[in-house]
Amino acid sequence: MSRGLFITLEGGDGCGKSSQILLLRNWLEQNWHGKVCLTREPGGTIGAEEIRRLLVTGAENRWDALTEALLMTSARRDNVVRLIKPALEAGEAVLSDRFFDSTAVYQGFVGGVDAEIVAFLNARCLEGVVPDITILLDLDPKIGLARVAGRGDSDELRFEEKGIAFHEKLREAYLKLAAAEPERFITIDASQDENAVHQEIITALKPRIDSALAS
Amino acid sequence: MSRGLFITLEGGDGCGKSSQILLLRNWLEQNWHGKVCLTREPGGTIGAEEIRRLLVTGAENRWDALTEALLMTSARRDNVVRLIKPALEAGEAVLSDRFFDSTAVYQGFVGGVDAEIVAFLNARCLEGVVPDITILLDLDPKIGLARVAGRGDSDELRFEEKGIAFHEKLREAYLKLAAAEPERFITIDASQDENAVHQEIITALKPRIDSALAS
Repeated sequence: MSRGLFITLEGGDGCGKSSQILLLRNWLEQNWHGKVCLTREPGGTIGAEEIRRLLVTGAENRWDALTEALLMTSARRDNVVRLIKPALEAGEAVLSDRFFDSTAVYQGFVGGVDAEIVAFLNARCLEGVVPDITILLDLDPKIGLARVAGRGDSDELRFEEKGIAFHEKLREAYLKLAAAEPERFITIDASQDENAVHQEIITALKPRIDSALAS
Repeated sequence: MSRGLFITLEGGDGCGKSSQILLLRNWLEQNWHGKVCLTREPGGTIGAEEIRRLLVTGAENRWDALTEALLMTSARRDNVVRLIKPALEAGEAVLSDRFFDSTAVYQGFVGGVDAEIVAFLNARCLEGVVPDITILLDLDPKIGLARVAGRGDSDELRFEEKGIAFHEKLREAYLKLAAAEPERFITIDASQDENAVHQEIITALKPRIDSALAS
């Protein structure tokens, strides 16, 4: 068992994940007894960021879903081996913007990659590293779309291109994962304002952190 | 069953693989009833060549063996899905400079990746595509080293850096694979001169091609 704490954030476009992860990092820096390590997926290490470039640039259908899952797992493994696992072993709190649940949802449930393949990649290629806590920012895609609309940036374009049905499928998949692992997941109603979401996250997190610090 | 024929070439440094694959392609263009498609690993497609750059550039230990196996499998899948499988379905003879046996040998036997993981990646991520024939150019590494020595190029440097013990382990691993699947493998004594090796390859190949053409 590591002495650190591994927290991941998951959710669809417009759920406020980027803002919440920064608020949470600041809170952890006051409330965790050691260092706080922030990472993201795909990416986090020099190698994984290079794999990220292959994943996020180029045409939409540049890779098929299983190739994408393999590339994601390559990047994730590099991040685990070189950053996340050493940090956890050193007692740090590691906070990751997405982790393996994103592959289960995007490439698995939605992309159609066999659940058995996704499960194998996650179980056998990540040195047994599993999040202690996963915060799911749950949001009705119609609200997510309304939020990104008007930004006029690439997020908005991407959201609209994929369509509401895609985002509803993502949400359903995330809720299924959360229901299957209630001890790991904290599901937060992300339709509230930023501060209310943050307060709800730390209220749910506090007892878990206290017990991690006591153990 | 595809109407095409999938032939892969395997072997260590200095075995003459690059020369033999070109001689074999020319021969196939005279002796196969359809098109001949030449590819290589990692690479072969635009996407896979980009993954190749991540694999062949940078420091020696840039990736750990399992991350490397995942990247290799990503590139291989892209090559299979977009090039090899469609070509086989169109009745072409596909000739590949390396395929999944390279991962079994380099990342598996030598790199230490669990054989079960390698077997899973090969069995579940490549659309069931398996070579019909694999030509192993078998060579004592001392002869391989003598061949690349004096070239003064990057091949020589790479060979010497890894050491003879590494190359002996590679050879042993390839011979094990060949012994386990005698119907798929054709093992050729690559210490002979280029023309003798080529003649031996086509002598072994001819009856298999005739039966493929007759079926």
